Amino acid sequence: MARYKVILQFDGSDFCGFQKQKQSRTVQGIVESALRLLGWKGTSILAAGRTDSGVHATGQVIAFDLDWKHSPKDLLRALNSHLPYDVAGQSVSRVLADFHPRYSAQGRRYKYRLFCDETRQPLKERYSWRIWPPVDLHKMQEAANYLQGTHDFGAYGSPIKPGGSTIRTIKRVGWFEEGSDMVFEIVGDAFLYHMVRRLVFVQSKIGQEEIQLEKIEGILSNKDFGRLQGLAPASGLTLVEVLYPPDIYLSGMQ
Amino acid sequence: MARYKVILQFDGSDFCGFQKQKQSRTVQGIVESALRLLGWKGTSILAAGRTDSGVHATGQVIAFDLDWKHSPKDLLRALNSHLPYDVAGQSVSRVLADFHPRYSAQGRRYKYRLFCDETRQPLKERYSWRIWPPVDLHKMQEAANYLQGTHDFGAYGSPIKPGGSTIRTIKRVGWFEEGSDMVFEIVGDAFLYHMVRRLVFVQSKIGQEEIQLEKIEGILSNKDFGRLQGLAPASGLTLVEVLYPPDIYLSGMQ
Repeated sequence: MARYKVILQFDGSDFCGFQKQKQSRTVQGIVESALRLLGWKGTSILAAGRTDSGVHATGQVIAFDLDWKHSPKDLLRALNSHLPYDVAGQSVSRVLADFHPRYSAQGRRYKYRLFCDETRQPLKERYSWRIWPPVDLHKMQEAANYLQGTHDFGAYGSPIKPGGSTIRTIKRVGWFEEGSDMVFEIVGDAFLYHMVRRLVFVQSKIGQEEIQLEKIEGILSNKDFGRLQGLAPASGLTLVEVLYPPDIYLSGMQ
Repeated sequence: MARYKVILQFDGSDFCGFQKQKQSRTVQGIVESALRLLGWKGTSILAAGRTDSGVHATGQVIAFDLDWKHSPKDLLRALNSHLPYDVAGQSVSRVLADFHPRYSAQGRRYKYRLFCDETRQPLKERYSWRIWPPVDLHKMQEAANYLQGTHDFGAYGSPIKPGGSTIRTIKRVGWFEEGSDMVFEIVGDAFLYHMVRRLVFVQSKIGQEEIQLEKIEGILSNKDFGRLQGLAPASGLTLVEVLYPPDIYLSGMQ
């Protein structure tokens, strides 16, 4: 028996989010069914975090204990052969027995993609957010600069445990252009529930000049602002990577 | 009553192709239902071509006659408000009464996207074809060069009317790189059924060095070769544009 870490990619369009639910198609439910076909006897896999319904991932991380006689690469192939079109393992590694995808993580990286168009673009909207009127990218870049560092993000989301801290540290944040798309990238130690989608929503309103740039600073410094209304759609969001220290791996066993 | 031309974009993933069928969800069926809500009384819209189940489009062209009191731009908005997430008009123009999307067309442009990876990539495979082992792009570019010009493409597909000509003229053809993807672009006067997907399949086998480059020339010059086996998947194919002469438009009425 050994602990395995798997990086998962999935298209969130047809899933009711990551976390297992009795009646709904979830990533966790599908992956656990596939693992059972490989002899897994656990009750629940571990995961770096829950993603909402419709959110995508190229780097969700899960872990589980399995009695597997072959190589990690063979496990990847076997797992993928039992997974449907919209989810696939990207790599499998043997890790230390106390590795936990959430508690061992040092950071998470998300991307949010949007584009400006008056007319619906069905071939883009599965993986991005169409907004109109157009946004001023420089204004959004300035807004993003305020987010860098350690702040109380209480107005942007709720902690996973009720009553938990709403202080989070943003290590890197910014907007960049990719063709005609605008991509928001954010790296932080951890994120509150809905936090990235609320951050994007507020910045889009600043970009559309509906609210003032200074408001984003006001929200960060004023707890009494209450919870912000408005959420950018799930389709634009991708969990790109979960960051771990190098000492989680079993030496020479990958 | 006037004739309108609409450029349609659609994500083919959840459609059973373009052409109307009694029991299946098709692009034509969905668009005709939306038009009926706008007062359209016809029995069938006209279209530039039929796309297979799973094939996408950014530039399918349809036409229909409609009694519409407002501007073409208002018609676009009204139509899109009745269309689902995976299909949307991109522009509406008033055209001459004898305009026909298929018979007035001077050419069609398709793109086919593929990428090389050993591991499934759910976030890419809705709009491209994953192949492995990797292909030699230069070999595929050389193969594409043979396709330029007028040839009998009988080995690559069947004509829409049984017994019709299988001679087609390719005006522009080639492979180019887009990030880690390889994109095949082809412009021709018209295409046989399944022709682009068969051309891509043969070229991919040349790229993987499973068949010889010279074979593509042999297939083009030899009618007795029979119908080729093997078809690149629909997901990689997009009908990008249908080309028309400028005199189809009603002057000053767009």
